[in-house]
Amino acid sequence: MKAATYVSAGVLELTEKEKPHVIKPTDAVVRMVKSTICGTDLHILGGDVPACKPGTTLGHEAIGIVEEVGDAVNNFKVGDKVIVSCVTACNTCYYCKQQLPSHCEDGGWILGHLIEGTQAEYIHIPHADGSLYHAPESVSDEALVMLSDILPTSYEIGVQPSHVKPGDTVCIVGAGPIGLAALLTVQFYSPSRIIMVDLSESRLEASKEFGATDVIVSTTTEEVKAKIDEMTGGRGVDIVFECVGYPATFDICQKVVAIGGHVSNVGVHGKPVSFDLQDLWIKNITLSTGLVNANTTEMLLEVLKSGKIDATKLVTHHFKLSEITEAYKVFKAAEENHTLKVIIENDLS
Amino acid sequence: MKAATYVSAGVLELTEKEKPHVIKPTDAVVRMVKSTICGTDLHILGGDVPACKPGTTLGHEAIGIVEEVGDAVNNFKVGDKVIVSCVTACNTCYYCKQQLPSHCEDGGWILGHLIEGTQAEYIHIPHADGSLYHAPESVSDEALVMLSDILPTSYEIGVQPSHVKPGDTVCIVGAGPIGLAALLTVQFYSPSRIIMVDLSESRLEASKEFGATDVIVSTTTEEVKAKIDEMTGGRGVDIVFECVGYPATFDICQKVVAIGGHVSNVGVHGKPVSFDLQDLWIKNITLSTGLVNANTTEMLLEVLKSGKIDATKLVTHHFKLSEITEAYKVFKAAEENHTLKVIIENDLS
Repeated sequence: MKAATYVSAGVLELTEKEKPHVIKPTDAVVRMVKSTICGTDLHILGGDVPACKPGTTLGHEAIGIVEEVGDAVNNFKVGDKVIVSCVTACNTCYYCKQQLPSHCEDGGWILGHLIEGTQAEYIHIPHADGSLYHAPESVSDEALVMLSDILPTSYEIGVQPSHVKPGDTVCIVGAGPIGLAALLTVQFYSPSRIIMVDLSESRLEASKEFGATDVIVSTTTEEVKAKIDEMTGGRGVDIVFECVGYPATFDICQKVVAIGGHVSNVGVHGKPVSFDLQDLWIKNITLSTGLVNANTTEMLLEVLKSGKIDATKLVTHHFKLSEITEAYKVFKAAEENHTLKVIIENDLS
Repeated sequence: MKAATYVSAGVLELTEKEKPHVIKPTDAVVRMVKSTICGTDLHILGGDVPACKPGTTLGHEAIGIVEEVGDAVNNFKVGDKVIVSCVTACNTCYYCKQQLPSHCEDGGWILGHLIEGTQAEYIHIPHADGSLYHAPESVSDEALVMLSDILPTSYEIGVQPSHVKPGDTVCIVGAGPIGLAALLTVQFYSPSRIIMVDLSESRLEASKEFGATDVIVSTTTEEVKAKIDEMTGGRGVDIVFECVGYPATFDICQKVVAIGGHVSNVGVHGKPVSFDLQDLWIKNITLSTGLVNANTTEMLLEVLKSGKIDATKLVTHHFKLSEITEAYKVFKAAEENHTLKVIIENDLS
C-alpha cells in the first residue's frame, strides 16, 4: 500500500509498505477514506520530535471503513464507517481509568508518532474499541475528519477547562486551524465578545467569518494589551486561549487576562516561558494545559449532527494521497496559500 | 493610642496616634483584643511593598470588640466580639459582585497596607458589614485570629482550587505558617499522603505533628523530585501547594506534579519564574493563584467550632502590643526561635 513516510528531517515521501493486518485481538485495520495534516506533523517532519523515528507513516487524523477486526473488538465490525481518534485508549490502564487516555500506558498519541499513522491507504488501529467512533452518514466526511483531533483538542484543552460563561469576553491568540476551532467551539457557551489576535491579516479576516467579534493584528505585547484594555475598560479578558506555542504568544495571554480570569494553553511549546507570577499571584487566575483525551468526541459529533457549527469551514484545500508531498507544501506555506486544514483523500476510495 | 508603625525600611516603632472614629456611615471602630504578624508585614517592613507608605500602622489580622459603628452598619453593634478579616469588602463593586472581594474597588487587602492596620489599640474598619465576622465565645481567641488571613488563604488559594479528593497524594512546598495551615485544611478532604518539603528540619519535624505523612529536606530540585518519584511510583503528586514564593520552590512544584495534577500557588512572588511549558503542555495540569477573598471565613469558623482542626497549633509565641518590636524580631528569626504565628495582645484588653 501507499503511505506518507517521514524519511528524514524535511523529507516526506509516498512509499510502498505492506498492508497492515490484525495482530492482537483488540486491533482493527481501517481503510482510510479521508485524512488531514496537523501542525504536529510539520514538527515531526522538521525533525523536532525525536521520539518519531524515520520510516514512520505520519498522520493521526482520519475517517475510514473497517477492513478487519480482531476477535476481542466488541463495538466495530467489517464495513463500519469510523472516525479514527488521534488518541489510542486501552480503557484498562491507570490513566485511562483516570479519564486521561491522552496518557494511556499502551496508547495515547501514538498514531503517526510512535506507530504507523493515518496518511496511508490502510491504518492499523490498536485498541480499536477505545480509539474508533462510529461515523454517521448524516455528517459530511470533511466535518467528521475534524473530530479526529482539532475539534476535541480545541474544545477539551481550550474551552472546557476555561469554564467560559455566557457574556464572557474571550481572547484567542493565534488564528490558525486550532485557534479557529477554538473560536467555533467556544461559541457553544455564548460569550459576548471574541477577540482574535494573530500576525496574519488574512487569517484575522477569515476569523470574522468564524464568529470573531474583534480582531487585533499582533504587533508588540504592549500594543495588544493596550488595545484589549481599551476594549474591556482596562479589565482584560475573562478567558484567553494560547493557540500558538511560543513564549511571545504566551506572554500576550498572561498580560491580557483579567483578574479572576483563565488562561487555557492549547499551543505545543518547545521551550520554557517566563511566567509573571510577580504580577499574577494576586490576580486570582487559573491556567490549564494538556493533550486531548478525545473523550468529548461523541459529544462533539452530536453538535455536528445538530448543525450548530459548520466544521467544514476549517477545510480549505483537497488533495489525493498520491499528492501528499504537494499537500504538505501547501499546508506549510499557510500564509501564502491561505491554508487552514487540507483534506487528503485515499486514491482507493 | 499605641500603634505599630512602619517608620522606614527596617524600622518599626510603637508610636502614639490618635484613636480612630467612625467617619463614613459604613465604618466601625474595633478595640483590638489580639492580633498577629504575617510574612507580608515583614515584606513591608523590608521596604519591598512601595504602596505601603512610611507612617502606616501594620497588620491585617485581629479579633476585637466593636467600639463604634456608623449608621449604615447593619450586622454589628457596639460590644460585639468580631474577627477582622484581612480583606475589606464593599459588597457593591464589580469585583465584590464577582465574588472577588480580594479585588474590591474600595477595599481588598488595604489594612496595614494602604490604610492603618490592626497592630494598634484601636482599628478603623471601612465597610464593616463586609469586613467583620461575629466571633463566638466557643472558639478560643487564638484560633479566631487565625481566621483573619492564614486559614482562609491556605484554604481558598491552596486547597479549594486544587479540588483535592480523598486518597490523593499532596505535596506542600514550604512548612512555614501558611504551608502548615494548608496542611491542616487539606486534611478536610482525607488525602492519603501529605509530603512536606522545607529547608528546615525543625519545621519538618513540627509538620509531622500537624499531620504530614512524609517529610523531605529540600536540597536540590532533582533530589526532591527523585524522592517524590520514589514515593509515588514515578507518577508524581496529584496536588502540590507552593507556599514560599521563590522561583526555586515553584520549580520543585512544576517538577513533581503528576499528569492530570494541580499546582496551587499560594506564595507571594517578587519576580517571574521559568515555567516549563515544554514539559508541562502535555501533562494535563492546572494551576491556580490568587489573593484570599475571605469568603470562606464563616465556613472555616464552623470547622473550628466542630473541633475538626486545632488552629491554635499554629501559635508558638505571645507578646503584648507594647512588646511589638520584640515580637517582630522573634517572628523574623523564625528558624532560630521555632516561630510560627505570634499572638500580639492589646495591653488594654
